[in-house]
Amino acid sequence: MSESNSATWLAHVYVTLKTVVNDPQGLAIADGLHTMGYGGVEDVRAGKYLQVRLRAASAEEAQRLAEEMSDRLLANTVIENYRCVIEPAS
Amino acid sequence: MSESNSATWLAHVYVTLKTVVNDPQGLAIADGLHTMGYGGVEDVRAGKYLQVRLRAASAEEAQRLAEEMSDRLLANTVIENYRCVIEPAS
Repeated sequence: MSESNSATWLAHVYVTLKTVVNDPQGLAIADGLHTMGYGGVEDVRAGKYLQVRLRAASAEEAQRLAEEMSDRLLANTVIENYRCVIEPAS
Repeated sequence: MSESNSATWLAHVYVTLKTVVNDPQGLAIADGLHTMGYGGVEDVRAGKYLQVRLRAASAEEAQRLAEEMSDRLLANTVIENYRCVIEPAS
């Protein structure tokens, strides 16, 4: 197989709504926290956290793949930003 | 106000499914990535990433509040783990 020599990586992908986009889920969570007595909560933004385990020849290649996957599937780049952090898989 | 002397903190809350819990969303994402040609993807786990801006007297107090909120509302601790990271809000 062409991937026989590659290593396994864990990509942490953080997907967040752009600041100009309304976040009804975050507002609902903030309302809930206020109702529960957490008056110090000023704002909540809700996003996604994906852990992708993948094989790639290097950390740089894993980073490139994770960002390409984020652009194409994991994030909706019209309304969302994403950040990918790569580490060797344990 | 009782909070007049407190500072503003940003709590990053990462909520992940426990490893023993099935993750249909993660499986669907992995299937999608395979269909798109990313054969090196071995596993995907889907979680939540919440940003909570809150006022608290200290980083320790903010950490305690964020963990209490996670226990009570942000995570379902029967099936989910959470991790809170506090930083001063910019």
